[in-house]
Amino acid sequence: MIERLSEIFSEIKLAYKIVEEVVKNTSIMRSKTLEALTQVKGIYIKCENFQRTGSFKFRGAWNALSHLSKDKKKKGVIAHSSGNHAQAVALAAKILGIKAVIVMPENTSEFKKKATENYGAEIIYSGNKPKDRAIMAEKLAEERELSLIHPHNDYQVIFGAGTVAYELLREIGKLDLILAPVGGGGLISGTAIAAKGLLPNIQVIGVEPQNADDAYRSFKSGTRLLVENPDTIADGLRTSLGENTFPIIQEHVDDIITVSEEQIFKSMMFYLERMKIVAEPSGAVSLAPLLFNLLNKKLVKNKRIGVILSGGNVDLLQFFSKFKSSDIKS
Amino acid sequence: MIERLSEIFSEIKLAYKIVEEVVKNTSIMRSKTLEALTQVKGIYIKCENFQRTGSFKFRGAWNALSHLSKDKKKKGVIAHSSGNHAQAVALAAKILGIKAVIVMPENTSEFKKKATENYGAEIIYSGNKPKDRAIMAEKLAEERELSLIHPHNDYQVIFGAGTVAYELLREIGKLDLILAPVGGGGLISGTAIAAKGLLPNIQVIGVEPQNADDAYRSFKSGTRLLVENPDTIADGLRTSLGENTFPIIQEHVDDIITVSEEQIFKSMMFYLERMKIVAEPSGAVSLAPLLFNLLNKKLVKNKRIGVILSGGNVDLLQFFSKFKSSDIKS
Repeated sequence: MIERLSEIFSEIKLAYKIVEEVVKNTSIMRSKTLEALTQVKGIYIKCENFQRTGSFKFRGAWNALSHLSKDKKKKGVIAHSSGNHAQAVALAAKILGIKAVIVMPENTSEFKKKATENYGAEIIYSGNKPKDRAIMAEKLAEERELSLIHPHNDYQVIFGAGTVAYELLREIGKLDLILAPVGGGGLISGTAIAAKGLLPNIQVIGVEPQNADDAYRSFKSGTRLLVENPDTIADGLRTSLGENTFPIIQEHVDDIITVSEEQIFKSMMFYLERMKIVAEPSGAVSLAPLLFNLLNKKLVKNKRIGVILSGGNVDLLQFFSKFKSSDIKS
Repeated sequence: MIERLSEIFSEIKLAYKIVEEVVKNTSIMRSKTLEALTQVKGIYIKCENFQRTGSFKFRGAWNALSHLSKDKKKKGVIAHSSGNHAQAVALAAKILGIKAVIVMPENTSEFKKKATENYGAEIIYSGNKPKDRAIMAEKLAEERELSLIHPHNDYQVIFGAGTVAYELLREIGKLDLILAPVGGGGLISGTAIAAKGLLPNIQVIGVEPQNADDAYRSFKSGTRLLVENPDTIADGLRTSLGENTFPIIQEHVDDIITVSEEQIFKSMMFYLERMKIVAEPSGAVSLAPLLFNLLNKKLVKNKRIGVILSGGNVDLLQFFSKFKSSDIKS
């Protein structure tokens, strides 16, 4: 067991050597207000919303693309994503001089389409279901001999994602607990490997929307369960756990907890109003357990806690136009 | 001349010793996208939106309150403000154990009222005109023997504001130019003293909304001109220059330029969408000259430029509810 962890942890250290040169060493922020509110000794927020392309996904994309053979780099890559992974692959490919094709659903927001186009990727629209995207991407990958970069099942993507926690812990030193969002499971898997690799006794807890609680149910039941078209404002966390991430989560993650839509929204607003930073709903979920006191006191009291704020890609104008001020001010 | 500057500069160094212990040493952010767009060598954004109470005003309030005699501290302070100065005085007073009274217009947003109340200040509502506030505050100051803390005419407030540029330059080293917003002139005055004190050849340029261009007109004409009820989204910059700030600006500021409402809005959106940080319109004005290429090329090309982002107190929900998405996406 320990041997397996140390082996897989060395992959993260290797990934860090690869991504270090090009990713931003993102700020770690603290908030006196937040620490006073939650009575936690120290809360260290790793701001991957400040990462290139606006989310941690750039780390995994860069690591995965860097690992491709010369021949595969020449032929190009393909990814399917409606969001952050698309932008990340597009920029990484652009910098590396690799051709990139992104398969997106037709109903992707203009905001995200433009961002991906700006990075020079070819965009191909599939239907609106995640399955359509995946089928289309696999078909195109074969036809055009492109390497498919999976958003969370690719081990190099997982190791790249793990560099967020690795960088946080190298800078801050000992933490007692790390909280990270859970969607397909790439970030929480990488986080767990990096954190336990550096600090065997650290707690790693994944945070998931109640409305997309496949990881929670999978973790508790021991069987990977899927969720179909979940309805949550945390659009980056609608995916189900992957085949490769679930076993890592079972072995190295200590718990998964779920949070409500209102808690996600209010966490995002806390970042906006009190800390003056933009977190997308999927990036804000990991703050909710602290803000709403959802964790066992023992885990929190007088502890030092890391929070991974995974991304900041949200069209606030469009987002707020869905709400009336009175709906959410309560 | 040089002597006068060195004397007044020593006041800023003194102020920094006083505020250093309690203010946040705010982040300095860079953006590859911004530097590529503007072809500037280095743009260093001093993020006072992350300052305690959400704006640079806390520095001046802390410095001014710290300079009061024991007797005056016992009797308490009063300030008139609809915004950031109110919150700053309220928090500084709370920490120092001083009683604070804030005179606010009745039409102050709930957002700002609550923030000020949370810091424990007594709020008294005046009419809606700035003059009513000032008259009410002066009357109360006399009746209750409170020390009036003026938002920009108080020299200790000016020296406190100057610690923003002082801190920036101490961390970054040589810059060629600093851009700062201009309202009552406290920030730009302090910035000019600090910057020229450290680097005699640095350029200091103030940025003001076209719709509230009293500083621009005063600077060009050599006579302090006032503006009445200007209509700008940069609500913190509606004030006219003060008696004490205008002479400092005349002597130590190199230029004042004005920016349009659209440019202010788009600068704020650049911070939100590309840099993932919340700037209030008044805080975003100083980015506009770079983003919209309003400066002489000689001042910009291959230069290192500091931008003071002065605050982040904006109720985004309410702010965006005024716009239709289509109005501003152009």
